[in-house]
Amino acid sequence: MNDIEKYIREIPDFPKKGIIFRDIMPLIGNAEGLRLAVDSIVEILSEIDFDLVAGSEARGFLTGAPVAYAMNKGFVSVRKKGKLPYETISADYDLEYGTATVEIQKDAIVPGQRVVIIDDLLATGGTIDAVIRLVEELGGEVVKIICLIELCGLNGRDKFKDYDVDCILQYPDA
Amino acid sequence: MNDIEKYIREIPDFPKKGIIFRDIMPLIGNAEGLRLAVDSIVEILSEIDFDLVAGSEARGFLTGAPVAYAMNKGFVSVRKKGKLPYETISADYDLEYGTATVEIQKDAIVPGQRVVIIDDLLATGGTIDAVIRLVEELGGEVVKIICLIELCGLNGRDKFKDYDVDCILQYPDA
Repeated sequence: MNDIEKYIREIPDFPKKGIIFRDIMPLIGNAEGLRLAVDSIVEILSEIDFDLVAGSEARGFLTGAPVAYAMNKGFVSVRKKGKLPYETISADYDLEYGTATVEIQKDAIVPGQRVVIIDDLLATGGTIDAVIRLVEELGGEVVKIICLIELCGLNGRDKFKDYDVDCILQYPDA
Repeated sequence: MNDIEKYIREIPDFPKKGIIFRDIMPLIGNAEGLRLAVDSIVEILSEIDFDLVAGSEARGFLTGAPVAYAMNKGFVSVRKKGKLPYETISADYDLEYGTATVEIQKDAIVPGQRVVIIDDLLATGGTIDAVIRLVEELGGEVVKIICLIELCGLNGRDKFKDYDVDCILQYPDA
């Protein structure tokens, strides 16, 4: 167990029986935990040339915004449908039952900008796939995807073979 | 107009006629804007002794989490009802029509901890009032409230006469 992992709370049978929910609140809520999480992402990005961080609400904001601040970049908010004012574009993604929609403001990315996507969780990869489509529709280039937690048994990473993906903590969970 | 204000986008007649929506996305999405916003809050807090930052989803995470990171504190997430796993307590607040509920994890704050509340907007003050109640119910002491934007005409600040409130940008909007 590394220094970050000890701050992750396991909640068995949440949201349903047989699933272990990996709760990042004790990590983000602890001074050392938040610093370790953000700095571990900053370290991965230290060799990468990029312009913006993009992340989806709400947990994606918790690490994405501090990383953007620490590295002197802007942070682009991807939000659930209807939350963003101004002109937006949207992308749908599949949930277990039905679909959900995320949006981004049309002027959030200038064509050619290099974008790092940061999220808390790589599970099936549906949300991240939607964020990629939004970034690319605006002409941005996705140069890196970083997730705090990867649930490897769900094979979400297989969706992103053409991208550079890094995860801080990996669990075998399916 | 100060350096931060120039990044705020005014959206007239949103969400309804006669209201000017103050959009912080261009501020947070810009490297200089995000840095100015976070650093202006950090400067206010530099003389304050505190343990934790608390903020409510989702826009409250955008400045609150970077401030917590920059100042080596933990960030406590206040979320909408049903979003947080583990044991929670909740507080209701009034909306224009009906009420909404926010929650916090029971172990997010240890009694006696000194908490700074950071949010994007002080309008009528309903959300911030709910966050105060959650922090205090867990035994935390609210030592400072900082909002990026204050809509002064709504008199939200009157709710918090017993607290130390600072806002970065003030508009006369009602």
